[in-house]
Amino acid sequence: MSQEEAVGQPFEHEIRVTWGDCDPARIAYTARIPWFALDAINAWWEEKLGGGWFQMELDRGVGTPFVNMTIDFRSPVTPRHRLLCAVRPVRLGETSVSFEVLGRQDGVLCFEGRFTCVFIAVPRFRKAPPPEDIRAVVEAHLN
Amino acid sequence: MSQEEAVGQPFEHEIRVTWGDCDPARIAYTARIPWFALDAINAWWEEKLGGGWFQMELDRGVGTPFVNMTIDFRSPVTPRHRLLCAVRPVRLGETSVSFEVLGRQDGVLCFEGRFTCVFIAVPRFRKAPPPEDIRAVVEAHLN
Amino acid sequence: MSQEEAVGQPFEHEIRVTWGDCDPARIAYTARIPWFALDAINAWWEEKLGGGWFQMELDRGVGTPFVNMTIDFRSPVTPRHRLLCAVRPVRLGETSVSFEVLGRQDGVLCFEGRFTCVFIAVPRFRKAPPPEDIRAVVEAHLN
Amino acid sequence: MSQEEAVGQPFEHEIRVTWGDCDPARIAYTARIPWFALDAINAWWEEKLGGGWFQMELDRGVGTPFVNMTIDFRSPVTPRHRLLCAVRPVRLGETSVSFEVLGRQDGVLCFEGRFTCVFIAVPRFRKAPPPEDIRAVVEAHLN
Repeated sequence: MSQEEAVGQPFEHEIRVTWGDCDPARIAYTARIPWFALDAINAWWEEKLGGGWFQMELDRGVGTPFVNMTIDFRSPVTPRHRLLCAVRPVRLGETSVSFEVLGRQDGVLCFEGRFTCVFIAVPRFRKAPPPEDIRAVVEAHLN
Repeated sequence: MSQEEAVGQPFEHEIRVTWGDCDPARIAYTARIPWFALDAINAWWEEKLGGGWFQMELDRGVGTPFVNMTIDFRSPVTPRHRLLCAVRPVRLGETSVSFEVLGRQDGVLCFEGRFTCVFIAVPRFRKAPPPEDIRAVVEAHLN
Repeated sequence: MSQEEAVGQPFEHEIRVTWGDCDPARIAYTARIPWFALDAINAWWEEKLGGGWFQMELDRGVGTPFVNMTIDFRSPVTPRHRLLCAVRPVRLGETSVSFEVLGRQDGVLCFEGRFTCVFIAVPRFRKAPPPEDIRAVVEAHLN
Repeated sequence: MSQEEAVGQPFEHEIRVTWGDCDPARIAYTARIPWFALDAINAWWEEKLGGGWFQMELDRGVGTPFVNMTIDFRSPVTPRHRLLCAVRPVRLGETSVSFEVLGRQDGVLCFEGRFTCVFIAVPRFRKAPPPEDIRAVVEAHLN
């Protein structure tokens, strides 16, 4: 039994890939993929915390700017199937958090990425440990 | 002699259309065109006022939200040529301004649009007459 | 009783507006709105015809390039609520179709737009009447 | 003397960052950065080969899909200064090429990324060594 199964279904964000996302090669343009992945991470926060980056920053003064993204592109993304992005936190530091995003279409892994953010206190844009409830939400989903 | 010639060369903003702007029909995706047109209007402000929407809003507390856009698409936009967007104000009201944007590639008119904005005072998001220097800049280019 | 009620619920496409769609004024950037509206029209085709622009063009050789878009922006779009885009065809010509898109958040009309497309036969990019089943799908939803 | 100086000025692509590229934190949205970087790589091909991805794929049947991107975000990107993206190839394999992109504003390093593409022969979407002139262009700029 995998760890993923042990902790239940991972969070999955569904994206409707369209004509406008595709380039003349008839697949989603490479620069759209990080956008999709970030949409999925934002959706993870919405689902787990009750608000995405917009609410975190404006209502709570907590920002999570990215310091690194690494993406392997495995297979083209097309409008033929919905894009399912599985998101989970994979590391939580004192002032940072890393997410893994796996994008699949019709059972095929299309891309896998790792994204690291730091927590900052708005408006000074300085690294700061996250509030306890945010830390707790991430910890609850680490595996 | 056209009015345009009478007042000198209109402002022109050059856009490098790329692979990533195109859809599977191998032409710029329709939803990219308004984006290009807005880039051109912002560039007009940069050129004429010394700062675009970012500087107007953050440094001066003046916003210019759009209330209408109307675009006729005449001919496909492609990466084969630079896209030249001619911008000029065509109407100035008490609290509003309208711009015309003509997009051309290789001498061919690709789209023509008209965009109307209202002036607002930030942060109350209320309509307000623009500062005198902004009004003067627009008036100087009306024709 | 309005016509809309007479013919049942209109098609509605839900969009999750996010942080990344917003500009420094903390509302969706103007140039994102036409993109949202086109996503909604594409979703209408997916729902009614079984395939969006991607499938229409690649599988059936039917393109529907836009010749005009006109949008009135009524109220800011934000990530506070889902954006519900009601789409319906409002005119069907020999070789063209017009759609109305109404975008609402939390019961408030945010924008209303009208979009006109022509039918073309790929790959010659020439205007042509649409196939009968496509015409029938549009006609069934005109009101 | 650095290697860069030894071989002359690196290729630099200038990007006008605007209001619409920024999120509510008033800096360019993270997902715009890979887009900027890809624009810069495409511009490198335009400059060095005489045509970007559009021309490579449509006119010559050569595609260069990405297999990996890794980006470190060092400092926020804003509309206050032009974004200068220095691009250079850093590795050329039998059927792949890697580019480094360094984004700077006002002398400050904002991001650094590495992007790896494979060469494919269109339309079969299979890895293939690049044509000799393309290989030569990359080799001439490796350092």
